Amino acid sequence: MFNKLAIIGVGLIGGSVACAARDNKLAKQIIGIGRNTNTKNLEIAKELGVIDEFHYFNSDLTKVLKDVDCLVIATPVGVAQAIFTELKKYWNPATIYTDAGSTKVSMVEAVREVFGFIPENFVPAHPIAGSEQSGVTAARAGLFIDKRLIITPVAETAQSAVERITEFWQQLGAQVSTMDIKHHDEVLAATSHLPHVLAYALVDMLGKKDQQNEIFKYAAGGFKDFTRIASSDPTMWLDICMANRDEIVPLIHQLKGELTAVAEMLEAGDSENLFNTFNQARIARQRFLAQYQ
Amino acid sequence: MFNKLAIIGVGLIGGSVACAARDNKLAKQIIGIGRNTNTKNLEIAKELGVIDEFHYFNSDLTKVLKDVDCLVIATPVGVAQAIFTELKKYWNPATIYTDAGSTKVSMVEAVREVFGFIPENFVPAHPIAGSEQSGVTAARAGLFIDKRLIITPVAETAQSAVERITEFWQQLGAQVSTMDIKHHDEVLAATSHLPHVLAYALVDMLGKKDQQNEIFKYAAGGFKDFTRIASSDPTMWLDICMANRDEIVPLIHQLKGELTAVAEMLEAGDSENLFNTFNQARIARQRFLAQYQ
Repeated sequence: MFNKLAIIGVGLIGGSVACAARDNKLAKQIIGIGRNTNTKNLEIAKELGVIDEFHYFNSDLTKVLKDVDCLVIATPVGVAQAIFTELKKYWNPATIYTDAGSTKVSMVEAVREVFGFIPENFVPAHPIAGSEQSGVTAARAGLFIDKRLIITPVAETAQSAVERITEFWQQLGAQVSTMDIKHHDEVLAATSHLPHVLAYALVDMLGKKDQQNEIFKYAAGGFKDFTRIASSDPTMWLDICMANRDEIVPLIHQLKGELTAVAEMLEAGDSENLFNTFNQARIARQRFLAQYQ
Repeated sequence: MFNKLAIIGVGLIGGSVACAARDNKLAKQIIGIGRNTNTKNLEIAKELGVIDEFHYFNSDLTKVLKDVDCLVIATPVGVAQAIFTELKKYWNPATIYTDAGSTKVSMVEAVREVFGFIPENFVPAHPIAGSEQSGVTAARAGLFIDKRLIITPVAETAQSAVERITEFWQQLGAQVSTMDIKHHDEVLAATSHLPHVLAYALVDMLGKKDQQNEIFKYAAGGFKDFTRIASSDPTMWLDICMANRDEIVPLIHQLKGELTAVAEMLEAGDSENLFNTFNQARIARQRFLAQYQ
């Protein structure tokens, strides 16, 4: 599909894109591009065979980037603007640029900030796949199989570029949908960002109690699953939460309202409404499960 | 170990006690006792070979209960008082009574309400094992292996009875600890009850959004694990939450405070404190995981 695929941010997601592209013979050559020369990440990625070669932004990338067919940005969303500032120097109308960021309004804003407009060959996208693990050593070719991939084109985005990226992700195994950037951020704030904030807030609070009182010793499998996402990379989630705070903060307040209502039901002994809340939640989760499986 | 083991509430927990007792040859005869003649639960339990026979409280149980060595109450905690009222008619000093309720202060209060004191042959206990599934069809002999079992004796409880119940649960595979009833309820409120309340509140809230906006379609594995406990039996959890509301309500308010702090950090763009919160949570969860595994 591509002669040369470039990936910026060869971690869990970027590394898995590389592995899956190689397994599916979608790229003849795969290169990694890095910002930080002081980490061994790209060296490890090359040793693992995830990428064929790597380069850093501190050298001239004119030659390296001139014949890239597709460039995937899979860095934490907080550094997107810095990345696009670098890329602008070598911007190539023949390359399709795409990203894997968890927030899309901020990504598009970062691009507009750098260019003053949205280049037609940039396709904002988000694979809804991941893990509480991070780094290239956690990358695997099967990560995107049967997972959702949302493309969020803007008015300027070239339809031909959207079609190429759609085809690319479909070949990686993903189910591709298209969505408005704002709608994407609303949906993900609810189903992903808010749960992460909640898990972090809860485990931070209970971690302090545990230090005084050894409560974790008596926590069971339910707690393990409930808190799995609190083991996620804090840098990545700091970026996501800051980037999408306009959607997340109102949801936090809404949830606090729900919790207040539950506390009031408990205090009032209002079994009927509390049962209804629990039961509606259970029914809603069965609805989610039915479409997830 | 016992000639005759009786179980009231042959569901996930009671059924698993029966299966495990049988597999480990701890009881020659296992009987189920039920309140509701209108469910087929005990018939199914007998068909599955989980129990040998069953009886209902609406008939005279004098004969049935006179030679029971150990009686396990594994009903929802909300019906404990009704169960003890029935049991009082046949109370047998030669039987050891125990329970599997998730809240212990309320259980002991229910017993005191019925008897005016705590009989020395009642041993309050709580196996920290379970599943979002319920009913005897989900029961399995291995449910308690390497799981925590907390015994919460009160001043009146006979040491010999505690020792017998300790031995029984150890034979079922559990790791037995002893704890004060109040401390038990504090610990479980934090690591089990609060997470369930949170999961129910979140999924109830998001379920309404999903009906308007199809958000669940784009939810991933993190959401699936985070919300698993929202599929738990709402009747059972209504009982637990009501029984332990004195511990749960203050934790709900404390968590709301944590969420307010996170929302404020987001609004202020306070990356440093938000990172610290996320990172401390991740470190705390690794500490939990290290002792869980």
